[in-house]
Amino acid sequence: MAATKSIPGSMSVIVQKFGGTSVANLERIRNAALRTKSEYDSGNNVVVVVSAMAGTTNQLVQWTGQAAELHDTREYDAVVSAGEQITAGLFAVILQEMGIPARSWLGWQLPIRTDSAHGSARIQEIDVQAIQQRFEERQIAVIAGFQGLSVDNRITTLGRGGTDTSAVAFATALKAERCDIFTDVDGIYTSDPRIVTRARKLDKITYEEMLELASLGAKVLQTRSVELAMNYGVRLQVLSSFNDTPGTFVVDEDEIVEKKIVSGIAYSRDEAKITLRRVADRPGIAAAVFGPLADANINVDMIVQNISQSDKSTDLTFTVTRSHLERAVAVLEKARPEIDYEELKADEDVTKVSVIGVGMRSHVGVAKRMFATLAERGINIQVISTSEIKVSVLIEEEYTELALRALHTAYGLDDG
Amino acid sequence: MAATKSIPGSMSVIVQKFGGTSVANLERIRNAALRTKSEYDSGNNVVVVVSAMAGTTNQLVQWTGQAAELHDTREYDAVVSAGEQITAGLFAVILQEMGIPARSWLGWQLPIRTDSAHGSARIQEIDVQAIQQRFEERQIAVIAGFQGLSVDNRITTLGRGGTDTSAVAFATALKAERCDIFTDVDGIYTSDPRIVTRARKLDKITYEEMLELASLGAKVLQTRSVELAMNYGVRLQVLSSFNDTPGTFVVDEDEIVEKKIVSGIAYSRDEAKITLRRVADRPGIAAAVFGPLADANINVDMIVQNISQSDKSTDLTFTVTRSHLERAVAVLEKARPEIDYEELKADEDVTKVSVIGVGMRSHVGVAKRMFATLAERGINIQVISTSEIKVSVLIEEEYTELALRALHTAYGLDDG
Repeated sequence: MAATKSIPGSMSVIVQKFGGTSVANLERIRNAALRTKSEYDSGNNVVVVVSAMAGTTNQLVQWTGQAAELHDTREYDAVVSAGEQITAGLFAVILQEMGIPARSWLGWQLPIRTDSAHGSARIQEIDVQAIQQRFEERQIAVIAGFQGLSVDNRITTLGRGGTDTSAVAFATALKAERCDIFTDVDGIYTSDPRIVTRARKLDKITYEEMLELASLGAKVLQTRSVELAMNYGVRLQVLSSFNDTPGTFVVDEDEIVEKKIVSGIAYSRDEAKITLRRVADRPGIAAAVFGPLADANINVDMIVQNISQSDKSTDLTFTVTRSHLERAVAVLEKARPEIDYEELKADEDVTKVSVIGVGMRSHVGVAKRMFATLAERGINIQVISTSEIKVSVLIEEEYTELALRALHTAYGLDDG
Repeated sequence: MAATKSIPGSMSVIVQKFGGTSVANLERIRNAALRTKSEYDSGNNVVVVVSAMAGTTNQLVQWTGQAAELHDTREYDAVVSAGEQITAGLFAVILQEMGIPARSWLGWQLPIRTDSAHGSARIQEIDVQAIQQRFEERQIAVIAGFQGLSVDNRITTLGRGGTDTSAVAFATALKAERCDIFTDVDGIYTSDPRIVTRARKLDKITYEEMLELASLGAKVLQTRSVELAMNYGVRLQVLSSFNDTPGTFVVDEDEIVEKKIVSGIAYSRDEAKITLRRVADRPGIAAAVFGPLADANINVDMIVQNISQSDKSTDLTFTVTRSHLERAVAVLEKARPEIDYEELKADEDVTKVSVIGVGMRSHVGVAKRMFATLAERGINIQVISTSEIKVSVLIEEEYTELALRALHTAYGLDDG
């Protein structure tokens, strides 16, 4: 990421990202544009980064998939990037109608340089000179998010949620004071408020915690956008475009004064468990199992291997993304002669529940409290995995809500 | 139009244009792609030029209009050009799925250089080098029609029907053997077959006749595409993508052996008549009337001025596009003091009926037969206008069908 120098004495730059539901139709785009106008009228220079209107990207992805199951990802990118182009033009027109100078920018026009990994490209460099020059004329830049340009002069896209990353990349390149991510939720909660009614909105969360949440499937921010914000110290705010309450700031750990040991309880139903029974316990067994899965682009998450039995066999349990389960089973059945196992059991009725908090680094006993809380409720833990700031357990799916509520209370997160 | 030299010894180039109804969904794109495959398999190099999927452009135009009635045409172009981008990518994927090397090209990627008249830009130059190089690898180019690139690096569009012009421009630049315009009709008919059941499909029509038809509102080909084809001698074929019958060739007059005096009877309900009664008959009166209309971008078509009365006043009758009538009346009422007329009468219940044929150049009596035929049926002629190969009359709308059938018979055009 090469950032162009900021113009001395210039006004603050605010980047506003509007997600698909916030620009779902013209009325919503008008509401979003009023938020832009408000920042602009306070004397800030504003860069707006927009997603496709809700539903558009799904439709385009679906068409491309129906055109050919295995399709040229360069053509996929040409098709799916059209959605953001439409929103950017409409948003610029609506700002102009409000009397604000504005223009749309497509990825290839600046350009936004990316690598050539079509479908999940990474931004390498953004040329923001033209945008900065137009700040002098108080013009607002409306950027089509999610897209960039490869060295071959073809459109690339940044993967689902990529517009978050576009927004953070512009905030970085323009040394923006703040990057506001407008979405359909108020901010980041201590847990899913639809399940845990006593969940509270967090005023602040650390980059690290947000990263864990994002990788656990929280759809609020693309993982890469959080990494980028963390690396360049971009102040991110996640907030709703449908009300005026302040959102959640994603910030450096130092900025959080009152630290809790655990910040939130997350869960993911996007898991499936595979158990290989009575695998011959010999060196190289992990490679024999996980090599073919990796070759088939199947991500393996949690892994546990039972203690070897007297007959030199072991049980191996691990999780894959639920949508990959069928493919994973096929791969493992094909590799059965090499792996040498007695039985394969697949289970989709599982949930991964995680407690997250940077406070864990300095406090012991977090995992212990989790295990005790679940045990008290008679919830069996199937697999465990941990990181420096996270403990995850795999449980039977029907206990999901019970587990979330119990843990939320146990870690003192309940509202009021 | 700068054409790149064709590669010596290379195969023939066929340009295929598919309109919105021909690519309305994936199934139709597949059918269209089979036509491409067929040309390709016969050993030709093929360039496909595609419209947006039927309905898409209308939706995008509508959104832009709702965003702001008077909108920045540069943003309009960014929005509406997205439709062709989607089709081009999907078409390329489907060709690849059939085992044919193909890639999509957007206007800015080649580029297709146009002037900066956003919304109705004219193509200035197409760089076809990359396409020709890929012919060597037998790759098919799938071009997003309707769009180009201005000198300011912004997307331009060529006006409604502009994909026809894109196709002819590529046929010119690539010295194509033929430019096939696939649409939802079989070809060009001697009259509208929905009204004149004995109308026949023409095997051939001259560029000049097609130009008159296009300017009379026949929506089969954009006027500019016919001009371009005429100037560069591009062999155009208009044919249906829904059946395998040959279409109508648009060709040079020399190519037509058996010449008819009249080739077709056209009509347009897109007219409205305005009469200014008792206008003071003085020099400069035409400028006083038509100047303000031109300033308001209102096109005036047929004009007739009555012989001056003894009181030095005259009646002035002319037609405007029906959708402009309300605006035209407002302009004329505002200019009443300068024009000095007694009464303004507006009439929407009119139809323009035209007989067209290059044979008129060498035959007298065509207009006379038209007037006699209409008189026999008791149809009153309100305004007359003529060109070298066309006679148009304005009649009361309710006589439209009667007039068309009578003229079709009178000029010997009836089938069988």
